[in-house]
Amino acid sequence: MFNYPNGKKPSTQTPSTTHSPNLKKSRLGIDFEGLINDSNQYYLNNNIAVIHKKPTPIQITKVDYPSRKSAKITEAFYKIPSTTDYNGIYKGKHIDFEAKSCLGKTFSLARIYDHQVNHLKLIREHGGISFLLIKFNDYDEVYLLESDKLVAYVEASKNGGRKSIPKEYFEEHGHFIKLGYNPIIDYLKVVDKLLEDK
Amino acid sequence: MFNYPNGKKPSTQTPSTTHSPNLKKSRLGIDFEGLINDSNQYYLNNNIAVIHKKPTPIQITKVDYPSRKSAKITEAFYKIPSTTDYNGIYKGKHIDFEAKSCLGKTFSLARIYDHQVNHLKLIREHGGISFLLIKFNDYDEVYLLESDKLVAYVEASKNGGRKSIPKEYFEEHGHFIKLGYNPIIDYLKVVDKLLEDK
Repeated sequence: MFNYPNGKKPSTQTPSTTHSPNLKKSRLGIDFEGLINDSNQYYLNNNIAVIHKKPTPIQITKVDYPSRKSAKITEAFYKIPSTTDYNGIYKGKHIDFEAKSCLGKTFSLARIYDHQVNHLKLIREHGGISFLLIKFNDYDEVYLLESDKLVAYVEASKNGGRKSIPKEYFEEHGHFIKLGYNPIIDYLKVVDKLLEDK
Repeated sequence: MFNYPNGKKPSTQTPSTTHSPNLKKSRLGIDFEGLINDSNQYYLNNNIAVIHKKPTPIQITKVDYPSRKSAKITEAFYKIPSTTDYNGIYKGKHIDFEAKSCLGKTFSLARIYDHQVNHLKLIREHGGISFLLIKFNDYDEVYLLESDKLVAYVEASKNGGRKSIPKEYFEEHGHFIKLGYNPIIDYLKVVDKLLEDK
């Protein structure tokens, strides 16, 4: 019934980028954002959830109009995002999360803005499900850390605690997400568990 | 507790741009987006709802790095938005809407993409509240039209119906929003009514 921007209905089968579950190494070269986008596309195609990445915020300072139809931006700058990367709806619940990948065994808190942590906290307080999704690239491991656990760590950090979160904290207080096939990062399985526990 | 990008906590008083309720004419010069953003800021400051405008999607094609710290985008283009302008959470409910202002007495359906209408439909099916917020600039009147009413019109349009929605349709099937002071466009008052009726 509806037309899509590229004139095609999104496939209800596999997402455009697929990955063999046996080629674990091959995943390392694929960025985390792409894996999440593929997973969200799978959720959308199968009518499971409607979750999208927000566009990167850009401050546009100069625009050219070479023709009547097309505008070309000739000067722009990256802006600090006011919220998080992803949000949407699942089982009637508002979902909101930030996604980060990191090297080594620790996640530096300098990588996430305080106002983003506060945004996740607010979403939780307003009845939504909010979390940090993190990929430790050297281990090819993904964890979901609920926003209350993240907030607790950040608060402790401000009171003289560590300025980075060790992988062990995610192992202990987060939820490990086994990389799968379709979807690749089935983070809504963890959300199901969180909803059950409520 | 948290630091904000500009180092200041958002004011819990009036938004930065305020408008006298008696200077109705002055509103005409202020774009609709600004009015909605101010209203959302009011909702946020008063802990009523967390609703943000999504950034404009941009396709970046060239980036310069004049210094190690700052990247300058030197060529980019506007992209077709894959979803809608605004979303967030209110009373635990997922909120999603598109905002349009128009001149005259009709809203042309060419102004909204089919996939955006479909997105609003999907959000409703998944248990969220979705709608079109429209401002008739020549009348200084704002209406909220629920997505099911919009979808019905668009479907009829595809089956040989009108390609534009007359103001009367909004008057009859939508909800009139009286412009106020703080917030200027109190669309959540309509959402309250929609939630009561459910």
